[in-house]
Amino acid sequence: MSDVTEQGAIEGGGRRARGEGRGAAARRASRTGGGPGPSLPYIQRKIREYEVLDEEGLQLIERNADTVLEEIGIEFRDDPEALELWKAAGADVRGERVHFPKGLCRELLKTAPSNFTWHARNPERNAHIGGKATVFAPVYGPPFVRDLDGNRRYATIEDFRNFVKLAYMAPSVHSSGGTVCEPVDIPVNKRHLDMVYSHIKYSDKPFMGSVTAPERAEDTIAMAKIVFGDDFVEKNTVTLNLINANSPMVFDETMVGALKVYARHNQACVLSPFILSGAMSPVTVAGTLTQILAEVLAGASFTQLIRKGAPVLFGTFAASISMQSGAPTFGTPEPSLVSYGAAQLARRLGLPFRTGGSLCGSKVPDAQAAHESANTINMTLLAGTNFVLHAAGWLEGGLVSSYEKFMIDQDQLGMMQKMAEGVDLSENAQALDAIREVGPGSHYLGCSHTQANFQTAFYRSPLADNNSFEQWEIEGEKRIEQRANALARSWLEHYEAPYLDPAIDDALKEFIAKRKDSMPDAFT
Amino acid sequence: MSDVTEQGAIEGGGRRARGEGRGAAARRASRTGGGPGPSLPYIQRKIREYEVLDEEGLQLIERNADTVLEEIGIEFRDDPEALELWKAAGADVRGERVHFPKGLCRELLKTAPSNFTWHARNPERNAHIGGKATVFAPVYGPPFVRDLDGNRRYATIEDFRNFVKLAYMAPSVHSSGGTVCEPVDIPVNKRHLDMVYSHIKYSDKPFMGSVTAPERAEDTIAMAKIVFGDDFVEKNTVTLNLINANSPMVFDETMVGALKVYARHNQACVLSPFILSGAMSPVTVAGTLTQILAEVLAGASFTQLIRKGAPVLFGTFAASISMQSGAPTFGTPEPSLVSYGAAQLARRLGLPFRTGGSLCGSKVPDAQAAHESANTINMTLLAGTNFVLHAAGWLEGGLVSSYEKFMIDQDQLGMMQKMAEGVDLSENAQALDAIREVGPGSHYLGCSHTQANFQTAFYRSPLADNNSFEQWEIEGEKRIEQRANALARSWLEHYEAPYLDPAIDDALKEFIAKRKDSMPDAFT
Repeated sequence: MSDVTEQGAIEGGGRRARGEGRGAAARRASRTGGGPGPSLPYIQRKIREYEVLDEEGLQLIERNADTVLEEIGIEFRDDPEALELWKAAGADVRGERVHFPKGLCRELLKTAPSNFTWHARNPERNAHIGGKATVFAPVYGPPFVRDLDGNRRYATIEDFRNFVKLAYMAPSVHSSGGTVCEPVDIPVNKRHLDMVYSHIKYSDKPFMGSVTAPERAEDTIAMAKIVFGDDFVEKNTVTLNLINANSPMVFDETMVGALKVYARHNQACVLSPFILSGAMSPVTVAGTLTQILAEVLAGASFTQLIRKGAPVLFGTFAASISMQSGAPTFGTPEPSLVSYGAAQLARRLGLPFRTGGSLCGSKVPDAQAAHESANTINMTLLAGTNFVLHAAGWLEGGLVSSYEKFMIDQDQLGMMQKMAEGVDLSENAQALDAIREVGPGSHYLGCSHTQANFQTAFYRSPLADNNSFEQWEIEGEKRIEQRANALARSWLEHYEAPYLDPAIDDALKEFIAKRKDSMPDAFT
Repeated sequence: MSDVTEQGAIEGGGRRARGEGRGAAARRASRTGGGPGPSLPYIQRKIREYEVLDEEGLQLIERNADTVLEEIGIEFRDDPEALELWKAAGADVRGERVHFPKGLCRELLKTAPSNFTWHARNPERNAHIGGKATVFAPVYGPPFVRDLDGNRRYATIEDFRNFVKLAYMAPSVHSSGGTVCEPVDIPVNKRHLDMVYSHIKYSDKPFMGSVTAPERAEDTIAMAKIVFGDDFVEKNTVTLNLINANSPMVFDETMVGALKVYARHNQACVLSPFILSGAMSPVTVAGTLTQILAEVLAGASFTQLIRKGAPVLFGTFAASISMQSGAPTFGTPEPSLVSYGAAQLARRLGLPFRTGGSLCGSKVPDAQAAHESANTINMTLLAGTNFVLHAAGWLEGGLVSSYEKFMIDQDQLGMMQKMAEGVDLSENAQALDAIREVGPGSHYLGCSHTQANFQTAFYRSPLADNNSFEQWEIEGEKRIEQRANALARSWLEHYEAPYLDPAIDDALKEFIAKRKDSMPDAFT
């Protein structure tokens, strides 16, 4: 089968320093010609959602999920507190198996917010989660990287910092993400401290917390409090945190442990069944949707037992497995149907939704990687997804963070952001005067309407080569991954860190040193 | 600017031989392991259409198009007959400029069929055009090929035959297409005869006719009559024919000439403005949609002046140009918005719709080619497109037919076909018993539901590599285009021609020889 997972080994958060983030570094880099344009705010979709289920189909899945919850139940393993809470809430708990009376989970979820602000240390980078908002975050979890010299090797903290820098510079990547790669050169029990610090130090976009152990979640909260202040963290959401169900129908100690820490501190859990259909769920779309809904209902409603009003997302990681080899497959039609359907179920529940990304199984950023990623990210946007993990850099089924793939993906994210603006129907956009001015048989290249609008009319890719064959030949017959490689090098060269109050920086370093001193090094 | 066009130089179209097409060749090839699976019938979409315009926006575009038609008008150049017909129909004709009273075009289009059958010489391969049907056809028009040895060179009749063979074998390519490449080794005035013959001889899927001169359209009709019979052709549609507007707002002698021949014989015209926004239309989506609608209304309604009830499609070729270099760009957000909007306008008109394909500007089948193609073909399916030209093999802005790209694209078309099936909500697909059988913490790999359904559960790509990195490394670190190259070679090796009645074959050859003898060789 598969060694793919969304949880690598360890990952990681900040007193609120206001007014420092003016995007000055990005603008300086852009002026010099080698950097990206300024960062764009999160997407506010003006286009509608695409739907694959009608009312009857949605009700059918919901009824079946209720049956699963009541009759089969969901296990909460190695966590007596969770079982006690469920008993107290009215569930029928037998051993570690929790059976949910019809309607219990939905009733509990009424206190979960339908949308909220994900605060960044730079308020200009705050993201909205829910409603018509879409937020892109980088790849999460890979132990390996494909570096800029073409090597496939274990990731290091240097790679981690580089991906944080690239995500900080990428205009349409709205979050610094979480485990952008696993820094395996740092002991597993200490890594999360360096990861959270890197997100705070090298970026000012909102970041994710560590979920691989409750104490690492506590460290994340402690560091977030240094950046944002104690009171601010308890009253606002400054971290999103990836909580996977161990599908089918199990929540384990680690995940429930992290969930409890984050929910208690008002931080958001992205409650995501990790599904490779055919292995962790039935081989059918309808069966998979049923199981996903049951798992999310159980896990998400549990956050409300910990703290009413704590933000929680309806998450889905949907892929299939090859029935020949058992290998996971990405960008195929069935997971797209699952994600579209899950998005509809999430909207009916009133929860923000997470799915998709730029997923692929290819070992290199070739046409397979691109087709699979494009099939996934187009679906992700049209489904109306609110939070998109793995939106840039994912290669090889999530085992590898690729610099070249990151650059190619972030370009496509720019296209998705433009697409989300929909059709402008203003008088200027109607362009009737331009059509009058040009008339039959002429062209629009020099007309006044074109001159006035061409700067913003079309999305401009920094990587696509649309020159003539002859020009392309003269320039060395470069493939897009070669251009992506050069662009990544240029961005990293032009990177300038956003301002961080030295007092906060010192406090973070002091905290980390103290925590590290309290632990032996562990590498497994 | 651009030398891209949908019309290469020349292309082409056979007495109906029933019962010969049993797909035996494909099945034989598939059994030997090197060929494709059997051909699938055209797509009958069970998924809904995605829409980007609301009622208000649609009415706005329609009003503006009416204004363009009445106030600015459309030119029909070098065709006095067309102008006379428009006068007689009530249009205000000034010189070659036709001004259309409000509602005239829509009134005329009431006799155009909303859907019809596109007959193939093998009735099993008949395609439906309109409604929830989607038909994929190969690339159209390139003068160059990227061959299987990696050379970029002028296309030959041998290449033409090869692409016809590959399209015949590709399960989700439903049509043999038209000018799959330009056989430049044959005189330009004779080429269409060899092209039409190749479609009839080497495939039994429905094909397109020659449109580059009225007499070549007549030759197409004559050859179709040899295959299908005189009476059958006059009463049914056996060819689709690509009629481009010379945007902005011009129809030329060649296109109108071909249109008249086909409409008179009840053959379908795909009335397609060829739009690179910023050059042939305004730089805005709304302006482009307005012009497209005006051009289609004028051109499509003209077919009804020739013969009431002749089939005509609302066609759109939508791309943009780079405002920096003037080069055409593909797969970007703006043409997608144009196509989605145009599909809505076509449905309101009650006409079948054509747009999209697997378009790209890349010179090689790399990630750029794939992203641009995927962005386009996903949109094409979700827009509810009925006829899709350029669905496989298009490279380099349509200047090149690529063998490798053809194989990669046709795999993706298979995914689109699966996607179009939507979500199965049958009791089997609901899989509640499977969820009961497996329960929490186990897996679905061996369960009876998986065993019963895995053969059809997931789309199975013949090209994607989802093996482990180590396995991929052992197998030579192949990129998808290398696997596509090997698959194309294998298919061509396993190709077996569908049965063609020798009497028909002889009659076609005799016709061609006679026609060729009547003409001098012309190469420009």
